Amino acid sequence: MTGATTIDGFARRIRSGGGGLISAWIGIPDPLFVNHLAQEAFDAIVLDMQHGVWDIGSAAVGIGQGRLAGKPVLARIPVGDFASASRLLDAGASGIIAPMINSVSDAEAFAKATKYPPVGERSWGPTLAINHTGLSAAEYLATANEETLAIAMIETRAALDAADEIMRVEGIDGIFVGPSDLSIALSDGAKLAPDTAEVDGVLKHLIARCRAHGKFGCVFGSNGERAGELLKIGFDFVIAGADTQQLRSGAASAIAAARRVQAS
Amino acid sequence: MTGATTIDGFARRIRSGGGGLISAWIGIPDPLFVNHLAQEAFDAIVLDMQHGVWDIGSAAVGIGQGRLAGKPVLARIPVGDFASASRLLDAGASGIIAPMINSVSDAEAFAKATKYPPVGERSWGPTLAINHTGLSAAEYLATANEETLAIAMIETRAALDAADEIMRVEGIDGIFVGPSDLSIALSDGAKLAPDTAEVDGVLKHLIARCRAHGKFGCVFGSNGERAGELLKIGFDFVIAGADTQQLRSGAASAIAAARRVQAS
Amino acid sequence: MTGATTIDGFARRIRSGGGGLISAWIGIPDPLFVNHLAQEAFDAIVLDMQHGVWDIGSAAVGIGQGRLAGKPVLARIPVGDFASASRLLDAGASGIIAPMINSVSDAEAFAKATKYPPVGERSWGPTLAINHTGLSAAEYLATANEETLAIAMIETRAALDAADEIMRVEGIDGIFVGPSDLSIALSDGAKLAPDTAEVDGVLKHLIARCRAHGKFGCVFGSNGERAGELLKIGFDFVIAGADTQQLRSGAASAIAAARRVQAS
Amino acid sequence: MTGATTIDGFARRIRSGGGGLISAWIGIPDPLFVNHLAQEAFDAIVLDMQHGVWDIGSAAVGIGQGRLAGKPVLARIPVGDFASASRLLDAGASGIIAPMINSVSDAEAFAKATKYPPVGERSWGPTLAINHTGLSAAEYLATANEETLAIAMIETRAALDAADEIMRVEGIDGIFVGPSDLSIALSDGAKLAPDTAEVDGVLKHLIARCRAHGKFGCVFGSNGERAGELLKIGFDFVIAGADTQQLRSGAASAIAAARRVQAS
Amino acid sequence: MTGATTIDGFARRIRSGGGGLISAWIGIPDPLFVNHLAQEAFDAIVLDMQHGVWDIGSAAVGIGQGRLAGKPVLARIPVGDFASASRLLDAGASGIIAPMINSVSDAEAFAKATKYPPVGERSWGPTLAINHTGLSAAEYLATANEETLAIAMIETRAALDAADEIMRVEGIDGIFVGPSDLSIALSDGAKLAPDTAEVDGVLKHLIARCRAHGKFGCVFGSNGERAGELLKIGFDFVIAGADTQQLRSGAASAIAAARRVQAS
Amino acid sequence: MTGATTIDGFARRIRSGGGGLISAWIGIPDPLFVNHLAQEAFDAIVLDMQHGVWDIGSAAVGIGQGRLAGKPVLARIPVGDFASASRLLDAGASGIIAPMINSVSDAEAFAKATKYPPVGERSWGPTLAINHTGLSAAEYLATANEETLAIAMIETRAALDAADEIMRVEGIDGIFVGPSDLSIALSDGAKLAPDTAEVDGVLKHLIARCRAHGKFGCVFGSNGERAGELLKIGFDFVIAGADTQQLRSGAASAIAAARRVQAS
Ligand SMILES: [Mg+2]
Ligand SMILES: [Mg+2]
Ligand SMILES: [Mg+2]
Ligand SMILES: [Mg+2]
Ligand SMILES: [Mg+2]
Ligand SMILES: [Mg+2]
Repeated sequence: MTGATTIDGFARRIRSGGGGLISAWIGIPDPLFVNHLAQEAFDAIVLDMQHGVWDIGSAAVGIGQGRLAGKPVLARIPVGDFASASRLLDAGASGIIAPMINSVSDAEAFAKATKYPPVGERSWGPTLAINHTGLSAAEYLATANEETLAIAMIETRAALDAADEIMRVEGIDGIFVGPSDLSIALSDGAKLAPDTAEVDGVLKHLIARCRAHGKFGCVFGSNGERAGELLKIGFDFVIAGADTQQLRSGAASAIAAARRVQAS
Repeated sequence: MTGATTIDGFARRIRSGGGGLISAWIGIPDPLFVNHLAQEAFDAIVLDMQHGVWDIGSAAVGIGQGRLAGKPVLARIPVGDFASASRLLDAGASGIIAPMINSVSDAEAFAKATKYPPVGERSWGPTLAINHTGLSAAEYLATANEETLAIAMIETRAALDAADEIMRVEGIDGIFVGPSDLSIALSDGAKLAPDTAEVDGVLKHLIARCRAHGKFGCVFGSNGERAGELLKIGFDFVIAGADTQQLRSGAASAIAAARRVQAS
Repeated sequence: MTGATTIDGFARRIRSGGGGLISAWIGIPDPLFVNHLAQEAFDAIVLDMQHGVWDIGSAAVGIGQGRLAGKPVLARIPVGDFASASRLLDAGASGIIAPMINSVSDAEAFAKATKYPPVGERSWGPTLAINHTGLSAAEYLATANEETLAIAMIETRAALDAADEIMRVEGIDGIFVGPSDLSIALSDGAKLAPDTAEVDGVLKHLIARCRAHGKFGCVFGSNGERAGELLKIGFDFVIAGADTQQLRSGAASAIAAARRVQAS
Repeated sequence: MTGATTIDGFARRIRSGGGGLISAWIGIPDPLFVNHLAQEAFDAIVLDMQHGVWDIGSAAVGIGQGRLAGKPVLARIPVGDFASASRLLDAGASGIIAPMINSVSDAEAFAKATKYPPVGERSWGPTLAINHTGLSAAEYLATANEETLAIAMIETRAALDAADEIMRVEGIDGIFVGPSDLSIALSDGAKLAPDTAEVDGVLKHLIARCRAHGKFGCVFGSNGERAGELLKIGFDFVIAGADTQQLRSGAASAIAAARRVQAS
Repeated sequence: MTGATTIDGFARRIRSGGGGLISAWIGIPDPLFVNHLAQEAFDAIVLDMQHGVWDIGSAAVGIGQGRLAGKPVLARIPVGDFASASRLLDAGASGIIAPMINSVSDAEAFAKATKYPPVGERSWGPTLAINHTGLSAAEYLATANEETLAIAMIETRAALDAADEIMRVEGIDGIFVGPSDLSIALSDGAKLAPDTAEVDGVLKHLIARCRAHGKFGCVFGSNGERAGELLKIGFDFVIAGADTQQLRSGAASAIAAARRVQAS
Repeated sequence: MTGATTIDGFARRIRSGGGGLISAWIGIPDPLFVNHLAQEAFDAIVLDMQHGVWDIGSAAVGIGQGRLAGKPVLARIPVGDFASASRLLDAGASGIIAPMINSVSDAEAFAKATKYPPVGERSWGPTLAINHTGLSAAEYLATANEETLAIAMIETRAALDAADEIMRVEGIDGIFVGPSDLSIALSDGAKLAPDTAEVDGVLKHLIARCRAHGKFGCVFGSNGERAGELLKIGFDFVIAGADTQQLRSGAASAIAAARRVQAS
């Protein structure tokens, strides 16, 4: 069991650039599922509200179940749902990933919801976060803008064009690249191809821009091998397949092993 | 997508002895989780209410989500909770696994709750089951005792001693051996060792007694390889690890692959 | 909106024999559904936990939603689940219907769970019931055995044989006849026929025995017409079809009307 | 039980104009309720999140329970909640109805969220939809813009004025007229009168504009008879009363029948 | 038990200015919790969706549980989530508190969602509200703009500057001052200090402006004493600490009393 | 934040007799409520399933939310629901309180469900408990009978008579006295009077018998002062009022303070 200190040092770890972090990615809205997956050697957990089925009620307890296993829990919000970003931070999320941040104004709206003044306009009310961190209200106010992360997704042509300006928006801590949507965008809807050389070129460009801006870079990898490649490209935080991918590959392996032994 | 016919032919498949079936085993009480896991090549799904966290409300929709993927869904009830056995059949379960059936009277109470007269005293009210099977009320009444399964767990010394009599109880369709509890029982609480030669001896004895009684035999295997061995022993229906085992092994593989590629 | 007084006078109304009551019967475990159905001219609402999907959490709020509409809410428990009987009364249920009360000992166990000493051994803790009735703790203790009802289902051959003795058990306030199960029992599983002359004969016999014992009689009718006949037989409390029957007949009528007008 | 093919042919059926479809309309957020209502002869099911109580978690399983009964399930989103539109499609919805589409920019925002590039900017992640349709990821991407429907509600004066332009927005597949809000708007809040000649005039105008634009037209009818009239006006998809209307009319009929027989 | 009349007279009470009202404030999303707290001498209940964990499903039943205890229930929505404002009114909320209303356009969007034409554009569908109030549809339409409240939060520098104009927006019934956010804003994020003389000055100014505009004024007080001071300042509706504050202070008192007696 | 070690040392603390422990007592089935209350200086948390509204699903996450705050969480089961006792231990409960243990056979059934062989027949499957404690399966099996507590409630005349024999049953770790039910039982239902001299006499007798048997004694106190008295009598573990008592007294104090200041 890892203590609160480890969890709450997460922001420093991801910013330090000292080694790639691997996170779980969970769309199934079950708090116990989070606790089980958090037993494995993940550095963090992401609850996906955009393509997954979490809502604020399940996420608030899911965040707790991940922290109980010693892991920081982030959440990806639905497109443009910045009100939920604030609510998830109140519930103890260590960071928010916002999809489809395609412009400076998107980024500003995101930072406004996730950072207290003077950076943004996040509203006060972090009752659960204070429970979980053990900080006083004053300590929480003084440190939250630093300790909780606002991570902007870059996954469209418009976002690529605006990437430098987005990274310059005060309050944006890092970026998260979505290769699937990027590949659909780059092909004008013709294909889903997140692992091509074309996409890799974009990824390398973006991680270089992160370095230039002193921001960290995150990315979705569709499985373990791809995650390893993305770490080699230089990403600070990678996904090694979503929950359903890991669940189903584990099940498929078990079935295959059973049939192989049966046939032996 | 498999149709209702396949699902509702499950009882005939397991009774036919024509080849071992492999089932998923789910303790995490999330209906969508069921749907995802049911996409893999499982012959059935078991929702575990004894050591898992399902209740009647989540199970009723979980059964539907498994059937939606074309798979029959069974449920294991908590110890002695025969009232739930009836409720789960009403909700469309294809069979009930009852833990700790240690005596003829346990088996009779189980059959009483799961079989309509004259075999038992199951009470009428299968509204969801009728929705799901497309049968008329009269057809359902005429076929349910045959089409839905009552499966008695053998997992204590007392149950081993009474196994022949339990299999003779009218309405008991098959047995399910629990090697973990059996190993704890056989060692008087000293060890959890479900995969020893001693346990294998018991398993072989029990599957032979199944054959003698014309009943089918099911068993829990803690992973794919073990499931394969259990199929070779002759079991008709095996588990290849629980949901958390498959989920976590899939995740562990992904993390290991990522770290391996990263280090390459 | 009917006030608490009306709700809490329910026990007196059903005991008075002054006119047949009609109750809704709900298996779908949704509190808002209760509130909608309770707007119609029902005298009471029954939440069915035996063949329906209610659990204690949904039922506790469902009871409130029915009371909010001015209606007393009863609950049918799963077979033998007398622990839930107490919990439902704590949550404000106006009565409990227990299925498959086949013997004096079944009836005694039921009364033990639902009546405070000296009649039974119901345990103290009616926090929500006290909220809802506005009684003090002392008032609640003094009146609960009278104001909340224990209703035993008679629906097997054994129960028919024991009906007189069951009605004599202290704490049993009335009976509820289940014609579906009764018809299955009387035919040894051959048919579901709740509306035959044979069943009617049994119903008339039972309502006569109720009169003899000074108990009230309840019965399930599968639709409105049948409910009317059962009222004429003399039952004090009847069901006019379950929720799904009423929902689906309302929907079927609407579809039929639409197609008729469309074709006109 | 209808197979997946029928469900997924829904878009072609509604576009074909070959006969009016009748859909259920459900605001009560219970997945089992969906399954029960879907047994009746509806061509589709709509889950109402605007005036009903569905959220993403209940809707995701509700969609499954409708599909399990062989019916396509659509959802109406809250006003302007286009992020939920994408999430519902990911969960397997066959179409989205968006209320209060009053301008071209409203329509464009709606299409952006529900159609993949190059039409819109729907983000990739249809895990459940892929489970339910049995399509590969590539097949889903290639067909989703055609097979899932974006339906714009016309229910204000502004929307009436902009109706032609709204129908011209790429990605808008059809319209859905809301006569209740329309009548309130046309009377400046003075009355709720969805079934007047004035409203009928608007409806006829709108269905004519649909024909001109090659779009389909949907409309809410408050009961079966009204639905039939709306079909005669030429609508392709009509509602024959909401869930509560059908439920309560079914219950009222049963009570009335019971009292009539009782008094006979 | 207070009847529906009292609940539905709430708008007149708060507008009358005849005496300060004290409301509960609940972030824990449990309907039964609402019922328990509503037993105390509160004039109203607020469910907090901005910093609390309510969603529409829990709030719809929570509103019912508060009304069941005879209390009007209001809700605070997440920032900018005006679609939920309409849904909560449909579910029977007596008013909506919208956070971060910083401009006339914010206020107009809020009024548009909560008031029927001609004031706003609230969409028709108050099924539960009609159940709870016992009004006919026509009566509800005629009275809802008056009987349900739109309350704008003033809690930033921008909002202070625009306060007069915000109060002039048609449909805005009153304001609610958030001293915590206000203190953070006024200190540019340096401190959380809701109870200072500087804040009190602002509060007095705002309540004077309320009087000038004929609007009522509400405010959050972090405990009972502070609530009393705020009533003396002239607020019409005050909070005397959130649910967790009251819960924890009650628990802390009990522990302290136990330890004191133990040590005596 | 207290670590896992403290939580899992709870059994040793309560057995040591070195000072009275005070526990929270929660009937409201909300996991976040647990987390908030666990912030106060309680030594443990009890989730009440007998008179409270917890079920296995909410309790499994509630246990986690209490542990997240560094507190051991116990659960009281419904009367006779020993199957749930096992499930709650699997979910990480530190102990089970069983109501109405009136005889040696009740106590034996309770111990059978909560202790592994050779003491009892608890079935293997503590997946969440292993997550939470960080023990290996072998370690958990070796220590669980010692580290998790089976606590028998003594609250009827029969239980008083059998108290010595109940305490001698192997596997029963301690007793929990229920003064409310005891007072009802002793008065044959005439009064609820948990704090009388007569009850105190019984409590002193029982704590003396605990000492004689080397068992620990627990008791329910209806508020803080009473809890202090019970600690002085010598109880090892006391309740200082239920959740609703603490919540409502905290709220009542706040309202009173507000009205006092307002009137000053
Ligand atoms: Mg994306
Ligand atoms: Mg076992
Ligand atoms: Mg029956
Ligand atoms: Mg409308
Ligand atoms: Mg604020
Ligand atoms: Mg007790």
